[in-house]
Amino acid sequence: MTLVRENEIRRGEVAVELPGMNDAGLVFIGAIRTPWTSRLMTPRQGREDGPVCRIEIFPPWQEALDGLEKFERIEVLYWLHRSRRDLVRQSPANDGSVRGTFALRSPVRPNPIGTSIATLVGIEGATVLVRGMDCLDGTPLLDLKPERTLFKPIAPPQPGDFETG
Amino acid sequence: MTLVRENEIRRGEVAVELPGMNDAGLVFIGAIRTPWTSRLMTPRQGREDGPVCRIEIFPPWQEALDGLEKFERIEVLYWLHRSRRDLVRQSPANDGSVRGTFALRSPVRPNPIGTSIATLVGIEGATVLVRGMDCLDGTPLLDLKPERTLFKPIAPPQPGDFETG
Repeated sequence: MTLVRENEIRRGEVAVELPGMNDAGLVFIGAIRTPWTSRLMTPRQGREDGPVCRIEIFPPWQEALDGLEKFERIEVLYWLHRSRRDLVRQSPANDGSVRGTFALRSPVRPNPIGTSIATLVGIEGATVLVRGMDCLDGTPLLDLKPERTLFKPIAPPQPGDFETG
Repeated sequence: MTLVRENEIRRGEVAVELPGMNDAGLVFIGAIRTPWTSRLMTPRQGREDGPVCRIEIFPPWQEALDGLEKFERIEVLYWLHRSRRDLVRQSPANDGSVRGTFALRSPVRPNPIGTSIATLVGIEGATVLVRGMDCLDGTPLLDLKPERTLFKPIAPPQPGDFETG
């Protein structure tokens, strides 16, 4: 039994045909350096006391880091570049039992975007040091933002802010 | 003063040239129906007691919902299709003070992906009912996953799960 998925389809899993065209495009704005060079080694989920990882920001995006140092935790979005995208049902335990892709945090998904809440260790020039990552070394970075509970909007209030229902 | 950004560049803001090519492609897997049809109305952040919104899943992805009903909160990823992408410094208050894009949760970012933690109200066929959204009506859906603290990995442990540093 393979511990982690490479590209096989397992018993009970269901694949669909992917659309031939994309609806939107992404730019890779950096790379995440981690200790894990094989999918057989990566954590299933990051841990707060995990190893320090380096997020390297590509030009011209370094300037966008200004002010990020004030936040203890940041949300990291990355592209799971080695994942297949066509499974609607998956068997993480590879035991014949299956569950819908949206009921899992598996890297295999129609848009393989990983999200982590990382602890900020420091910022050195264009490099952000964090703990709490769970991705392969070399994973493309998509975005960084303050963790939602730490962020207070600076923009003036809008009517929707007060709507309940 | 405009309350919310449309497409203007404000005093102190810095735009960069976007790369001419995309590094990866997204597929829109659904649409989010909310009460907000103008960017002048949307909440700056969703609220737990906000209005119930409908996430409509497109074929062939409905089957991927199986099991999602067990989670009280879900992470929703969506494409902020009306946002400019080229600002590295922004002035949310439009008062001349600026901050780096990665230190904000503004919709304006190199890869305009919104993430919300929504409260699951119910699932009716291919429609997921949630509270806690903050996006425009018709926003394209990218992904749904269980909220991270509610999800226990089903896959067998991997060496990285035990690494600290």
